[in-house]
Amino acid sequence: MKALVYFGPRDVRVVEMPDAKIEQPTDVLVKITTTNICGSDLHMYEGRTDMEVGRILGHENMGRVVEVGKAVTHIKVGDMVCLPFNIGCGHCQNCESGLTGFCLTMNPGTAGAAYGFAGMGPYSGGQAEYLRVPHGDFNCLKLPEDAIEKENDYVMLSDIFPTGYHATELAGVKPGDSVVIYGAGPVGLMAAHSASIKGASKIMVVDNHPDRLKLAEELGAIAIDFSKGSAVEQVLELTDGAGADRGCECVGYQCCDKHGKEHSNITMNELVQAVKATGSIGVVGVFVPKDPKSKEELQKEGHMDFDFGQFWMKGQRIATGQANVKSYNRQLSTLISAGKARPSLIVSHELSLDEAPNAYKHFDERDNGWTKVLLKPEMIKAK
Amino acid sequence: MKALVYFGPRDVRVVEMPDAKIEQPTDVLVKITTTNICGSDLHMYEGRTDMEVGRILGHENMGRVVEVGKAVTHIKVGDMVCLPFNIGCGHCQNCESGLTGFCLTMNPGTAGAAYGFAGMGPYSGGQAEYLRVPHGDFNCLKLPEDAIEKENDYVMLSDIFPTGYHATELAGVKPGDSVVIYGAGPVGLMAAHSASIKGASKIMVVDNHPDRLKLAEELGAIAIDFSKGSAVEQVLELTDGAGADRGCECVGYQCCDKHGKEHSNITMNELVQAVKATGSIGVVGVFVPKDPKSKEELQKEGHMDFDFGQFWMKGQRIATGQANVKSYNRQLSTLISAGKARPSLIVSHELSLDEAPNAYKHFDERDNGWTKVLLKPEMIKAK
Amino acid sequence: MKALVYFGPRDVRVVEMPDAKIEQPTDVLVKITTTNICGSDLHMYEGRTDMEVGRILGHENMGRVVEVGKAVTHIKVGDMVCLPFNIGCGHCQNCESGLTGFCLTMNPGTAGAAYGFAGMGPYSGGQAEYLRVPHGDFNCLKLPEDAIEKENDYVMLSDIFPTGYHATELAGVKPGDSVVIYGAGPVGLMAAHSASIKGASKIMVVDNHPDRLKLAEELGAIAIDFSKGSAVEQVLELTDGAGADRGCECVGYQCCDKHGKEHSNITMNELVQAVKATGSIGVVGVFVPKDPKSKEELQKEGHMDFDFGQFWMKGQRIATGQANVKSYNRQLSTLISAGKARPSLIVSHELSLDEAPNAYKHFDERDNGWTKVLLKPEMIKAK
Amino acid sequence: MKALVYFGPRDVRVVEMPDAKIEQPTDVLVKITTTNICGSDLHMYEGRTDMEVGRILGHENMGRVVEVGKAVTHIKVGDMVCLPFNIGCGHCQNCESGLTGFCLTMNPGTAGAAYGFAGMGPYSGGQAEYLRVPHGDFNCLKLPEDAIEKENDYVMLSDIFPTGYHATELAGVKPGDSVVIYGAGPVGLMAAHSASIKGASKIMVVDNHPDRLKLAEELGAIAIDFSKGSAVEQVLELTDGAGADRGCECVGYQCCDKHGKEHSNITMNELVQAVKATGSIGVVGVFVPKDPKSKEELQKEGHMDFDFGQFWMKGQRIATGQANVKSYNRQLSTLISAGKARPSLIVSHELSLDEAPNAYKHFDERDNGWTKVLLKPEMIKAK
Repeated sequence: MKALVYFGPRDVRVVEMPDAKIEQPTDVLVKITTTNICGSDLHMYEGRTDMEVGRILGHENMGRVVEVGKAVTHIKVGDMVCLPFNIGCGHCQNCESGLTGFCLTMNPGTAGAAYGFAGMGPYSGGQAEYLRVPHGDFNCLKLPEDAIEKENDYVMLSDIFPTGYHATELAGVKPGDSVVIYGAGPVGLMAAHSASIKGASKIMVVDNHPDRLKLAEELGAIAIDFSKGSAVEQVLELTDGAGADRGCECVGYQCCDKHGKEHSNITMNELVQAVKATGSIGVVGVFVPKDPKSKEELQKEGHMDFDFGQFWMKGQRIATGQANVKSYNRQLSTLISAGKARPSLIVSHELSLDEAPNAYKHFDERDNGWTKVLLKPEMIKAK
Repeated sequence: MKALVYFGPRDVRVVEMPDAKIEQPTDVLVKITTTNICGSDLHMYEGRTDMEVGRILGHENMGRVVEVGKAVTHIKVGDMVCLPFNIGCGHCQNCESGLTGFCLTMNPGTAGAAYGFAGMGPYSGGQAEYLRVPHGDFNCLKLPEDAIEKENDYVMLSDIFPTGYHATELAGVKPGDSVVIYGAGPVGLMAAHSASIKGASKIMVVDNHPDRLKLAEELGAIAIDFSKGSAVEQVLELTDGAGADRGCECVGYQCCDKHGKEHSNITMNELVQAVKATGSIGVVGVFVPKDPKSKEELQKEGHMDFDFGQFWMKGQRIATGQANVKSYNRQLSTLISAGKARPSLIVSHELSLDEAPNAYKHFDERDNGWTKVLLKPEMIKAK
Repeated sequence: MKALVYFGPRDVRVVEMPDAKIEQPTDVLVKITTTNICGSDLHMYEGRTDMEVGRILGHENMGRVVEVGKAVTHIKVGDMVCLPFNIGCGHCQNCESGLTGFCLTMNPGTAGAAYGFAGMGPYSGGQAEYLRVPHGDFNCLKLPEDAIEKENDYVMLSDIFPTGYHATELAGVKPGDSVVIYGAGPVGLMAAHSASIKGASKIMVVDNHPDRLKLAEELGAIAIDFSKGSAVEQVLELTDGAGADRGCECVGYQCCDKHGKEHSNITMNELVQAVKATGSIGVVGVFVPKDPKSKEELQKEGHMDFDFGQFWMKGQRIATGQANVKSYNRQLSTLISAGKARPSLIVSHELSLDEAPNAYKHFDERDNGWTKVLLKPEMIKAK
Repeated sequence: MKALVYFGPRDVRVVEMPDAKIEQPTDVLVKITTTNICGSDLHMYEGRTDMEVGRILGHENMGRVVEVGKAVTHIKVGDMVCLPFNIGCGHCQNCESGLTGFCLTMNPGTAGAAYGFAGMGPYSGGQAEYLRVPHGDFNCLKLPEDAIEKENDYVMLSDIFPTGYHATELAGVKPGDSVVIYGAGPVGLMAAHSASIKGASKIMVVDNHPDRLKLAEELGAIAIDFSKGSAVEQVLELTDGAGADRGCECVGYQCCDKHGKEHSNITMNELVQAVKATGSIGVVGVFVPKDPKSKEELQKEGHMDFDFGQFWMKGQRIATGQANVKSYNRQLSTLISAGKARPSLIVSHELSLDEAPNAYKHFDERDNGWTKVLLKPEMIKAK
């Protein structure tokens, strides 16, 4: 089968690979119809992780079931399914509590398992024609009848829509709340969409890319351009000096100042200031325990110069970590089906699999307008 | 009246002060029967805060009502009452949500109000014969009939018992959980007592003072002496390598390594290691936004070299801040009355008010056996 | 002052009454600008309660502060305020937990206190020129600058908007849920509005009045006319046979079948059928402990022939009771201010106080189009 | 293999049956070491259900794994395991939310699946030498090393300990609460034990069997004998007239008055009176949708003459349904292991399987001292 393979820093290629196949009786085999490029794919693309050469990338996957193992009882051949990026076993202490992002058996250790991801187990990614899904009954979300019609919405259930939603859950967003979101990338935009669905009264999105801020406004948020003045001051002004009720971090350790220089603590320390006393902050942007290539001393060991004194004095809370996709994908699917959620609003490109290497290049360079790329392996390459 | 007054660093004296009196129609006047010395009094005593010379200290107070203002309807003369250290107005957005530690009107700003406390409003403390209690109907906890018999238990409801309990609430302790608590001072011991009341299955308390660790064991906890080996390793060993389900920080920014040297980040970074992935950490130890006298560069500005990467990767949570005493004091009072909570277990000294300066000295020097001092203004000085 | 007074069953008149005035130092005096007629006023109007002759009705009140007592610190003369129908003291065990509808001191007993309401204390109602508000700092919600412009929205915060919202809270409505609401009166419509704000995916409203069902549709709900076929079957069909995730009861003990005959158990037993196993039901429609004038034997003693076996087997939950308005009015106020909630959509009439008796008559007869009447004491009677 | 089989009303016999065996690749085969007789077995024993003749009874099972299917990855031969009475698939919407008692696929319909239970699917019970466990990785709780030493404690995790705990969860018991529990049978006693573990301040247990009330006292509860005076009045007196904070129903539809006459509404209507306004009630006693053999008209259709008016006016809550055992069994296992829970306290008899028919007879007749019977299939019949 054709698949996008990692050859080294900024070198990914579409090549022939052995067909994915059923390996365990609980497996399901999926023919991929849409697979997205995610911002976290870029960490691997840039060579900033220990991704193994030769592996297939892709953890935002959707497709049609073409074969099921002998122990699979619920999922049937022909079902349209969306796959959470986290792979859970379904029976460990964490999976049974809904913490599928921290499955204790699929990738023993703290990080959980995922498709095509550095440090998250040996599982192949889905930027390919086929994908093997372990524990298929547990991991496949069976989609309703409008799965093909709204495919670009449903594929977002694999990662960024639940991840954006998770940010608002970690932050405890309730009806009537004001919310400040750092980052207008796909995840930050999905956090804004989620906050709106939950009845937030005021949603403020901080970024410096005009195209992304424009999308934030289309989703009903107030755009805050930090290149035009202190984001903290703008938030305080919009909240009568009190600060926002809730904050979401949707950027991660590679956050930059207005000069484009990385400081891993910018977003967190600004959130402590921009969120009110007793407020809470959800962090879904990725922070890493080791980052040897960073130019910051503390960051090399995954540490941060954090404004803990202010944080404590304000009695705030921080909740972190990758989304447990299965905790949200059913209910978000219902909202898509009812027309009350439209995550596809942020899609900028639909391309064939062959065009993936070029798409990675543009996305990595944050080229204007490359917000979210969807790869369609069944599509013939555009001429 | 006689009162303990702050004269400067390590200089407190019992002197004559003007009588406390009713100033507002909602005030209540209390004759103090017991008032404790708290670990946070030492921050002021040592001159590490901007406490004003001439103010009366004391925020852990209990006594008998001797007069009530004209707008007071619920509290009566003769009632035995315990006073939460936080002073709330009862009608602001935070008070009405139970966040009385962050009252928006009694000390406008983020810190809330308290009796006899640096930076928490102009209110006199209760290490004196009388105390004025603002918004008496709201702030007085009326005690049951065994108030005098169990006075040393009930007085703990003013601060350290609810504060220890708050640590376990912030950490989300549930029946069956394992819990690691950093600090076996009065608050850490009350956190251990609270975790036991809540049905924790394993309670581990970390400290290096043998007398305090012994009290922890009397409260049903496992003592972990960090002077005898890595506390983190001991916790991991006791939890099959997984880490504790929950963690409590009950030390604060003046935490020390085994050589007695201050590093504000020791307890927090160890908690990140000692608590399991997806676990949560409650922080009631005090961390301050400014600490100019610290020897650590980051700490001078209230910042911390924090292991954020590990914290995020483990998907942990931190909740912070001073206890909202009123959220807990009724239910904890019920437990004292039923004989199911006995916070007085940690009391080491009951002294007259005149002996307060000497008691401050011993307590500040962490002299062996000076765990918790209760002052009894009605007691004649022991010869 | 002029006020609407209860003279007996179906006999209310606007007459001169002694001016409301400050009686306690914590009181606030409000000049009423809008006061609504509520469905529960009709229980008194119809003589089905033990309402005392000579009392002023009206518990949905809003106005301008014209005088404050000496112990009032927060509310100022000139403030525009909305008053929760429940009157709380602010310092009892229930008030401090947010259960202001069950204040233990303002009307000792179980029912809580309210303005102008049978069995809820001696407090005069607000269908008058002036209203005395006890514990003004606690009970007044100070409104933002657009208070006059959006007066017809804000006045709904006194009762029916929080009450409709409470129904969705008691039912546990979450984003993505399907919800069935029995009753398209003002409260049912506000429950539908609230469910929509909270991100429900499907909202079904059951009634048989075409004008009310039309309003439900304008609020984004699916109208279910029970006069045209079994409501339960329609709900099951709309939910693939599973039943709705959540149910709201917004009718109360006077619910009728399609022939207009009262059976107090219709809505509850249908909800048990129409809601899924493990689902939950919020009940804000009023049910009474005694109803001697009922034609049903059980109902005379406040009992119900309830399908408990089905309810238990399905593992459902029921939560009941009048709304604790203060728990919601701030956040709902924020949503009105942000333009994300528009409860005034259901207003059918704005009348002068003099027109109140006529309005009661039409409202009581459920005349077509008399959905919600707002009285404006400052308005000159329309000719 | 030998097994206890239902032959008809009050006729159960130990006979030879075909060996249980692996049927699906996800199955696990368990050699039973302990299997209990449950109060709900009596509903079948008495012929009050539609239990099929020829089926093996027993849903409280524990044993040693002797064989695993090819798709089983976590559970190994030799593991000591306890089996929740509910059988879940692990991947349906309810199982993934922890609602394993309402699994949507193992017994389609509302009731969930169980071993050897009328109306809960075709699964054989465990009062036998061997038991087939479907979805073994999901349904087996692997026990720690002290499994054999504390076998009589761990076997309680199959049903009654989690069911008693569930009652306290449904009722929302928190530290410091007062709790009234109707029923001192095994489940009521486990509810009392659970409330104690959770830090309840006052636990009142209502029954009229002196031996059971004595066990309640041994578990730290206050015994209330309803044959000696109104239980409601005794509870009100013990709670200063306010009523208990929480209530638990652990009897079910066969509850009797002091003359031994069945009235299905006694416990529920008393709980409405004995629990405070705003309090909540958890119901784990079984209530059935059809009961044709009842002598009460309403009860024949599963209906109840319920005091809904009082219930609503007090703003109470009811939550119901069978326990989702998997939601609690891990944490309760931890408490057993730590010595903080000892459910075996209520065991009255340990017998061989052959003695089961005689044990059913005594248990059914509520013979004094027959509180809880454990069958040990590996035991040779006592002479």
